[in-house]
Amino acid sequence: MQLFKKNANKIKIMALGGLNEVGKNMTVVEYKDEIIVIDAGLSFPDDDMLGVDIVIPDVTYLIKNKDKIKGIFITHGHEDHIGALPYILKKINVPVYGTKLSIGLIQVKLKEHKMNNVKLNVVTPRQIIKMGNMDVEFIKNNHSIPDACSIAVHTDQGIIFHTGDFKIDLTPIDGEVMDMHRICELSKKGVLLMLADSTNAERPGSTLSEKTVGAGLDDLFRKAMNNRIIVATFASNIHRLQQIINTAEKFNRKVAVSGRSMINVVNVASELGYLDIPENMLIDLNDLGRYEDNEVVLITTGSQGEPMSALARMASSEHKKVEIKNGDLIIISAHPIPGNEKLISKVVNCLFEKGAEVVYDDSDIHVSGHAKQEELKLLHRLVRPKFFMPAHGEYRMLKKHAELAEELGMPSQNIFVNKTGDVLEIDRNSAKVVGTVPTGNVLVDGLGVGDVGNIVLRDRKHLSEDGLMIVVVTISKEDGKVLAGPDIISRGFVYVRESEDLMDGAKNVIKDVLRECEDRNIKEWAYLKNNIKENLKEYLYQRTKRNPMILPIIMEV
Amino acid sequence: MQLFKKNANKIKIMALGGLNEVGKNMTVVEYKDEIIVIDAGLSFPDDDMLGVDIVIPDVTYLIKNKDKIKGIFITHGHEDHIGALPYILKKINVPVYGTKLSIGLIQVKLKEHKMNNVKLNVVTPRQIIKMGNMDVEFIKNNHSIPDACSIAVHTDQGIIFHTGDFKIDLTPIDGEVMDMHRICELSKKGVLLMLADSTNAERPGSTLSEKTVGAGLDDLFRKAMNNRIIVATFASNIHRLQQIINTAEKFNRKVAVSGRSMINVVNVASELGYLDIPENMLIDLNDLGRYEDNEVVLITTGSQGEPMSALARMASSEHKKVEIKNGDLIIISAHPIPGNEKLISKVVNCLFEKGAEVVYDDSDIHVSGHAKQEELKLLHRLVRPKFFMPAHGEYRMLKKHAELAEELGMPSQNIFVNKTGDVLEIDRNSAKVVGTVPTGNVLVDGLGVGDVGNIVLRDRKHLSEDGLMIVVVTISKEDGKVLAGPDIISRGFVYVRESEDLMDGAKNVIKDVLRECEDRNIKEWAYLKNNIKENLKEYLYQRTKRNPMILPIIMEV
Repeated sequence: MQLFKKNANKIKIMALGGLNEVGKNMTVVEYKDEIIVIDAGLSFPDDDMLGVDIVIPDVTYLIKNKDKIKGIFITHGHEDHIGALPYILKKINVPVYGTKLSIGLIQVKLKEHKMNNVKLNVVTPRQIIKMGNMDVEFIKNNHSIPDACSIAVHTDQGIIFHTGDFKIDLTPIDGEVMDMHRICELSKKGVLLMLADSTNAERPGSTLSEKTVGAGLDDLFRKAMNNRIIVATFASNIHRLQQIINTAEKFNRKVAVSGRSMINVVNVASELGYLDIPENMLIDLNDLGRYEDNEVVLITTGSQGEPMSALARMASSEHKKVEIKNGDLIIISAHPIPGNEKLISKVVNCLFEKGAEVVYDDSDIHVSGHAKQEELKLLHRLVRPKFFMPAHGEYRMLKKHAELAEELGMPSQNIFVNKTGDVLEIDRNSAKVVGTVPTGNVLVDGLGVGDVGNIVLRDRKHLSEDGLMIVVVTISKEDGKVLAGPDIISRGFVYVRESEDLMDGAKNVIKDVLRECEDRNIKEWAYLKNNIKENLKEYLYQRTKRNPMILPIIMEV
Repeated sequence: MQLFKKNANKIKIMALGGLNEVGKNMTVVEYKDEIIVIDAGLSFPDDDMLGVDIVIPDVTYLIKNKDKIKGIFITHGHEDHIGALPYILKKINVPVYGTKLSIGLIQVKLKEHKMNNVKLNVVTPRQIIKMGNMDVEFIKNNHSIPDACSIAVHTDQGIIFHTGDFKIDLTPIDGEVMDMHRICELSKKGVLLMLADSTNAERPGSTLSEKTVGAGLDDLFRKAMNNRIIVATFASNIHRLQQIINTAEKFNRKVAVSGRSMINVVNVASELGYLDIPENMLIDLNDLGRYEDNEVVLITTGSQGEPMSALARMASSEHKKVEIKNGDLIIISAHPIPGNEKLISKVVNCLFEKGAEVVYDDSDIHVSGHAKQEELKLLHRLVRPKFFMPAHGEYRMLKKHAELAEELGMPSQNIFVNKTGDVLEIDRNSAKVVGTVPTGNVLVDGLGVGDVGNIVLRDRKHLSEDGLMIVVVTISKEDGKVLAGPDIISRGFVYVRESEDLMDGAKNVIKDVLRECEDRNIKEWAYLKNNIKENLKEYLYQRTKRNPMILPIIMEV
């Protein structure tokens, strides 16, 4: 009885994604048989997840406890915080809460998935949503998308404060600085546990204000007075879009937009009032040719070199409406996300070859959306939590963030560098990891969610490296005689027309196996198949030092 | 007659690799029916070259003109300058010239390929090799491997000067500064054309001396007085190895070596006198456990996070002899090569998780081997060539290098930003691009050289993304009746046991097609196959939004 009571007064905190990885952010807070979920993000597949479109968290735990869930609370509208929503809401239809822009972007997403039965709730910062034993409050912060918030969960044990992604921008584009005043009030009430963004925990100093990018853009526009200007950036970075538009206005340029997600975001953001576009400024991409070079700016997707993006298509002359020409100034207003360096480099080279000037990887035209060490220190000093759990980042980032907290005087036993799935049990006096819940990567490929697993990936990898060889033989059921074949079909292995000799040799190897089986009157097809496989494998490896997948098929007639 | 005479006095310069790319360096100088080749490098496959091991230049031009070739002259022993030698020498067996270490490393390589009939010639800097109408001279430079040289080709039209990879290190580890004195003499004689390394042409300032790394290592060793130290770096960076050894000696640590290429290089370099290892300092990796943590340093491969490298295996607990433990200091003394960022990041995270301290991507412990803008300017001022062709680099680097030459006063019409395969014709008065020779990527996969082409790669890509589905049917030759099947085999598509319903549906689609053909008495198998393919494709896409490769096979009995 004592034990039960004690546990009932403990809060459970677990991340279902976002620890030891970048992306797939999702955090669960459970207290007295009630669950609230913070964010439901996706991540992009690693190089070894061949053919996979996106990766979402394993939410087995939530499905098992779906009656407890009060809602999903969204800190901001980036894919790594909202991208898994459609998939998860199909399994657990619970209300979703977020600020206006986040909900607007979620609506677009749900519409694409033809989902119209989700209860979406628009909240405003400082609004407190009563959820039973937990009250949830959104607190304005700064990030590379407007309307981003931290989330405070009020409980009778104290406050759980989750920063979400954030930076502290003292001169933000929309004038709304992170709500440090409210944070101080919460601190005074008592923050039991803080979870905080660790993305830039390895970087000293402070992230520059988004506003500095405006000056950088102005400079470039000034220098390229007579040239056409194309700016690539993240569609969701609406403050960046606003600054491009502001600079365009200063230099009397019209603005055209290219790329599906850019067009989507510009529409949603203008409708909801997050983007202020002067009347008659926006022109149709089809009308671009009707303006002089110095009268237009084109805003486009493709800042990460994504092969199908608008900018990549312009670079490879595959864009239907825009042709890069000598003298164009192309500004890539983004940093490369690790892993994208080569893609970006390829696009940049192609643009240069077409005679364009390209400005890229330049700190004057891009700033991060995540807090660096000095901002993190300020956050820790303001929040003054009792316990701390670094969130959002690879292990080394979490580790650095933990070290930073220790430097600021927090006892090391109060800091929890957890893994995804670890269950932290906490009350006003103590905290410890008490177990784990199932977690992992659920792979989404086309319409399939979770049907691509290790075996399928292993086969794809095998096929991608050396291709395959199919051997088909038709054999008589009665007497075991070969009636047709062996036929050989190969794909992705060698260029067949130039390898007739190799193929003839392969056929002979198979024929030898068939003859031997016939002679010995062996009718176990598994044995026969295995023999074909082994002998052919050895033959092909000796001849080519390659190991194609070998698929023997016996047809019995 | 006039025309012939004129052409005969022109020198042809063409790169068969290394322009608009990093790697695969190879330059051809042709004059009066004689050819000399500078370098024969490989490059590593792009992400879309699935299953490919390495990439070498297309040397069709050299094979066609093999009687003219006097030799291949090697600037230094890096893979991107010597890696294609075994493959090319199998087709054109010509003498190879290089400094002692380069030839030593080439010998190791040829031995692996079981080639012992190649004529290797060791040359010394300032030595002039008489080749007929061209004399070839090696000129000492600085780079991230000892014994690196630039090459001057003396002709009666003037000197062709190719820097090879270089930096200007005024305090090199071996005391041998780039031979600027000889360069001044050449300049006085008259350099007609310079080809120069553009790798760092985008970077302002000067590359730091290799010696600065020594101080960085000393600092780290001092701080980790009681810890085991593991240093990962490029095997070929022998000056770096020397400095690690020197620091180890200062701190009374023994040195063990891990990784096949590291062991190879340490052996060759010590034998040839390029690595000075104090007696009794080198210990066997098996004996590592017999020393205290503060008595040893382990030098290892894996600085690029290569999955099979020694360091990566240590990080994933798959190394047979070394286990990472709490407190180990791991120094990654290298910069990430673009494209390797994620691999390195993965290894670093794993090492951190094992409790190791990892120092990485830190300019105190690594410097580049390539000249930055200030060094390039110095080079141009010293060489004072009439014509200039930026070499070694992606397009944007070549472009920046060309701009730099122009800034220094060279007329733009004297600068040639060429592509691989462009033929530059030049004499003492003029230069222009007169045509192209065949070039491209020859893909090496196992023993196959060039047998993997676009079709094979396209198939591998297709297979890697959505796998395949094989459909086999045995049909009677006589009456077109189905005798066996349809059987379906899929790999890399879906996890079959969980998709029985999908597979049943697929079978029905095929049966419908077969029935229709039977009814209509159609015996054209090509038509039948195509019908199966199209119908199945549509069915599968509708059900899964995936497009596996579909291979219908008809066996006729």
